[in-house]
Amino acid sequence: MARCRVITIGRQYGSGGREIGEKLAEKLGYTYYDTILLDKAAKDSGLTESIIARYDEKLADKWLNISLGMHGSDDIQKLPVPLRAVIGQFEAIRKIGQQGSAVIVGRCADHVLREDKNVLSVFIYAGLGQRIARVAERNDISRDEARKRIRNTDKKRAAYYEYYTDKEWGKSESYHLCIDSGFFGIDGTVEVLSACIQQQERKEDSQYK
Amino acid sequence: MARCRVITIGRQYGSGGREIGEKLAEKLGYTYYDTILLDKAAKDSGLTESIIARYDEKLADKWLNISLGMHGSDDIQKLPVPLRAVIGQFEAIRKIGQQGSAVIVGRCADHVLREDKNVLSVFIYAGLGQRIARVAERNDISRDEARKRIRNTDKKRAAYYEYYTDKEWGKSESYHLCIDSGFFGIDGTVEVLSACIQQQERKEDSQYK
Repeated sequence: MARCRVITIGRQYGSGGREIGEKLAEKLGYTYYDTILLDKAAKDSGLTESIIARYDEKLADKWLNISLGMHGSDDIQKLPVPLRAVIGQFEAIRKIGQQGSAVIVGRCADHVLREDKNVLSVFIYAGLGQRIARVAERNDISRDEARKRIRNTDKKRAAYYEYYTDKEWGKSESYHLCIDSGFFGIDGTVEVLSACIQQQERKEDSQYK
Repeated sequence: MARCRVITIGRQYGSGGREIGEKLAEKLGYTYYDTILLDKAAKDSGLTESIIARYDEKLADKWLNISLGMHGSDDIQKLPVPLRAVIGQFEAIRKIGQQGSAVIVGRCADHVLREDKNVLSVFIYAGLGQRIARVAERNDISRDEARKRIRNTDKKRAAYYEYYTDKEWGKSESYHLCIDSGFFGIDGTVEVLSACIQQQERKEDSQYK
C-alpha cells in the first residue's frame, strides 16, 4: 500500500506556485495549505516549552537562547512575537507532515520536514517576462510595478528561507525537483508533479512487497 | 502527431547522468549522445567559415575575433585547436538538434539549442555522500579520492558551462527541470523524465488538433 505523502512547494513570485499547489492537491485528493493557512494554524496553536525545545537549530542559535536569556525566564509568552509566530508555523507544518496527504506551499516546509522520507520537496520558477505578465494581469498593475513586486517578494522569500535553513533558496540542490512552470504550463507542471508522486508510490509498493 | 524532441542533460559528476541518459534514450527509442560521441563528431566535421559565423556570442566576443585578428586571416585552419574543437562540438549538437529524437549529455547542449522549442533541458544532481559512494565503487577508488574527483570534475564542468553560456551551471533557472537522482533513483529519474516528454507530446498534440 502506498504511504501517506507530503509535497512541499517553494516558488518564485508569479510562477503560479499557489495555483499549481491547489490543482495538484485536488488531483491527488490531498489537503492544500498555504502561508495564510499556516499563519492561522500558528495563531491557533498553544506554544508550549516542549514545542520550543524541538527547534534546536538556527532558531535556537540565533534567537531562542538569546531571547530566553534576555527575559531571564522560560515563559514562552515573553518570547518576541515574530519568533513565537515562526515556531507556531513550523509546529503547524510538523503536524500536517504527520497527518500526510498534504500539499504545503511556502514557509520552509521542506526544511521543517527534511527528516521525513515521505516528503517530496519542489521548487517552481518561470522566466521573468512570464512572471511579470502574470503578476501584472492578476493584480491589474503596470509591468514596472509587477517587476518591483516580484523583486521585493522574492528577496523576502529568499531571506526568510536562508535565515531558517542552511540551504540556498531556489538552488536546485536544495530541493528534490525544480520545475519551470513557464515551460510546462500550469497544468503541465501539475501533471509532471503528479507523475513524480506516482513514481514514488510505485517504488514504495515494490519495497513493501 | 508528436514532434521530434531532444533532451539535453547537464549533470553533477557521480549523479548517474550518463546512465540515466542512456536508459531514457532506450526507453524513448531516441539516439544517445555523450561528450565522447560529440567530440568524435567535432573531429569528423569539416569546419567552414559559415559555421564559425554562427557562433556570434561569447565565442565570438572572447575568442573568435581575437583569434582571427591575431592571425590576420580568416583561414579557419589557423584558429587555435581548442576553439575549433568547441565550434565542432557545438555544430555537431546543432545537427543532432535538427534531426531530433535524441538525448544529449553534456557540452552546453541546452545553450546551443536554446532557441529550439522542442528541447527539454534537464540538470541531474544528487547528495554528495551518494555521489562519493557511486564514484568510489564504479572506479574502485577510496572515498577521499572520489571526493577529489567530484570536486575537480564539477569545477571544470561549471567553468566550461559558464564560459560559453550566460547562465549559472546547476542553478535551477538555467534549465527546464532539475532532478535529484539520489532521491528518485536512476530508474525513477528515467520514469519522471519520460513522463515529462509524454506531457510535452500531449500538449503538442492538443495544439495541433
